[in-house]
Amino acid sequence: MLGDFTYCNPTKLYFGKNALDGLKRELPKYGKNVLLVYGGGSIKRNGIYDKVTAILKECGKTVAEDSGIMPNPTSDKLNEGCERARACNADLILAVGGGSVCDYAKAVSVSAYCGDDPWEKFFIRFEEPDGKIIPVGCVLTMVGTGSEMNGGSVITNHAQKLKIGHVFGEEAYPKFSVLNPEFTFTLPAYQMKAGFFDIMSHILEQYFSDADDSTSDYISEGLLRSLIHSARIAVKDPENYEARSNIMWTATWALNTLIAKGKTTDWEVHMIGQAVGAYTDATHGMTLSAVSMPYYRFIMPYAPDKFARYAVNVWGVNESGKSTGEVAAEGLDEMEKWMKEIGLVMNVTDLGVTPDMLDGIVKATFLNEGGYKALTAVDVRTILEQSM
Amino acid sequence: MLGDFTYCNPTKLYFGKNALDGLKRELPKYGKNVLLVYGGGSIKRNGIYDKVTAILKECGKTVAEDSGIMPNPTSDKLNEGCERARACNADLILAVGGGSVCDYAKAVSVSAYCGDDPWEKFFIRFEEPDGKIIPVGCVLTMVGTGSEMNGGSVITNHAQKLKIGHVFGEEAYPKFSVLNPEFTFTLPAYQMKAGFFDIMSHILEQYFSDADDSTSDYISEGLLRSLIHSARIAVKDPENYEARSNIMWTATWALNTLIAKGKTTDWEVHMIGQAVGAYTDATHGMTLSAVSMPYYRFIMPYAPDKFARYAVNVWGVNESGKSTGEVAAEGLDEMEKWMKEIGLVMNVTDLGVTPDMLDGIVKATFLNEGGYKALTAVDVRTILEQSM
Repeated sequence: MLGDFTYCNPTKLYFGKNALDGLKRELPKYGKNVLLVYGGGSIKRNGIYDKVTAILKECGKTVAEDSGIMPNPTSDKLNEGCERARACNADLILAVGGGSVCDYAKAVSVSAYCGDDPWEKFFIRFEEPDGKIIPVGCVLTMVGTGSEMNGGSVITNHAQKLKIGHVFGEEAYPKFSVLNPEFTFTLPAYQMKAGFFDIMSHILEQYFSDADDSTSDYISEGLLRSLIHSARIAVKDPENYEARSNIMWTATWALNTLIAKGKTTDWEVHMIGQAVGAYTDATHGMTLSAVSMPYYRFIMPYAPDKFARYAVNVWGVNESGKSTGEVAAEGLDEMEKWMKEIGLVMNVTDLGVTPDMLDGIVKATFLNEGGYKALTAVDVRTILEQSM
Repeated sequence: MLGDFTYCNPTKLYFGKNALDGLKRELPKYGKNVLLVYGGGSIKRNGIYDKVTAILKECGKTVAEDSGIMPNPTSDKLNEGCERARACNADLILAVGGGSVCDYAKAVSVSAYCGDDPWEKFFIRFEEPDGKIIPVGCVLTMVGTGSEMNGGSVITNHAQKLKIGHVFGEEAYPKFSVLNPEFTFTLPAYQMKAGFFDIMSHILEQYFSDADDSTSDYISEGLLRSLIHSARIAVKDPENYEARSNIMWTATWALNTLIAKGKTTDWEVHMIGQAVGAYTDATHGMTLSAVSMPYYRFIMPYAPDKFARYAVNVWGVNESGKSTGEVAAEGLDEMEKWMKEIGLVMNVTDLGVTPDMLDGIVKATFLNEGGYKALTAVDVRTILEQSM
């Protein structure tokens, strides 16, 4: 842990088969007006909507609704949500859904009273919230983003063809989140698998940075091994509670700031993936899986020791009689095998990317520093071409 | 993660070489009166006292002192601390020291206005705090207990020859803790090493329970490997910042509730160690190291698969061509070798235990359920005899 840091994560989590009971404990802490935020209506088909609204009624809440949150929530929708939150004088925003719905709820919570254009203020100028923040609670129905226990929010602007994330401070974290692994059982396989890789990408993008041997990296290796193990079970048996619960818990800790402590990161896979998402509207986790193998093979020569450690500690590669480079390469081969076994999208062509889009995607990719290799626009194009 | 649980840990941590700057950010949040709590005066010799009091002065605080907190804080001292806290009308208790000082500060914080005998209320009847709680902040100078980010408090009653811990709820967690690894450099080697094993025991006692393959166990394996690696460096080079900082961070996460989530535990090594401590006043971590090898060898036959997993994943034992029992035993042999390499106390005789004490220690040992084998009094005696 070579770098200085602060850590504070005040979100209260209710986890397990009876996690929704936590909602009854939390609701009395807030005022009467609740803005219920959800997506396309799957929560009505699987019964979660009925369960949640019954508890809201039991607790005497006045409920306004804001539905139709899309997988990549837009700046236009955000403006609409701010209006609704103000119109109902929301004391609490209750997000019921996956990471997109939670992300959106957080964006509305800091934007409703910001007195500015939220897209410009938070996602272009990256300012911090300075007005009233409406408390947010989450009932999670999809696993992957970690949005249930962090300050992150990703919003897409279609007119500008930009998908940008802002990580708000702890005052904008969800006050509580309800995590019932059974609520994720009805998720379509494609979405489930995309979530698995979103988790893996979160861990890897924090793991593959810096040369120190920080405790964060050891924790990351544990999370990765848990994910790899449980994902293999879950793709064959999606209603395996133990596997799905392990994955749900891993997802939370993969992106709640813990494993980044003391490290620098560049999140370049997310930067490329988000640019692909802005052009294709493809599922977030699959944009990451499609570009990851070319990306990691591209940066491996800049940190062969770390990639060899990854091969041994995460994938169980036997290093005897092999060079560091051979061990490192074998680890990435194992990772690729696992990705194919899980059924992830392995190239951007399958997500709808066509050669004429490449210029735009490269241009829309933020180039950060902090990883083993600061990518240039040419590097991004190379990686994308290898992913076609 | 088979069991249901809640998770919330609101403590704010300031970590690193400049962590004490965090104190300047925190103090303005509290009233004028601060009760400064510390131990035997080592913080005066190493300069930490001067640094802390300078910041208290800079922030305009009125400071009362409560010093002389012993390594095993007593119920008599606790009563004295409550009087002082009331006398100065403390708005904040600032603990500067190791786990004992933090434990004591938390005990005073919930006891000062409890209107009862705190030993009887919290440590015999295990009641929850129901009165005013004085906020606590910590500046850590010794690593091991995790007290800086949990609700635990262990108090010793000499008259009753009992050393008992109570884990208070999150409202009694420290509001903030300052973790500067350099503040631990001047600690005597014996105390440093005892802290290392306290950490290991915290992780192992949560790891060795239940048969599921929860994410908690994968995280625990990562923490153990980080500890084993960094402790080897720190015993040779105590001022190695990277090693000491990794250990400090591992200690916090070893006992802040995370790795117990979804699991049952019996904490039986701590139960035996605390009974040894009540009879000898020996350093906590060394009471744990002295009884651990006999304890783990005793329970290993009840969970050979888990001990074999431990051997492979934590100690890197090569399992090919060996039975599960052989692999498990080899893991414990590796653990014993590491303990001797680090320089830990390996038997209770070296802590001053004499055969005439055994009856009393066995009687003072709480027998819990939740581990692989619920110990009987006869089992405890066997383990202690093997540790003589």
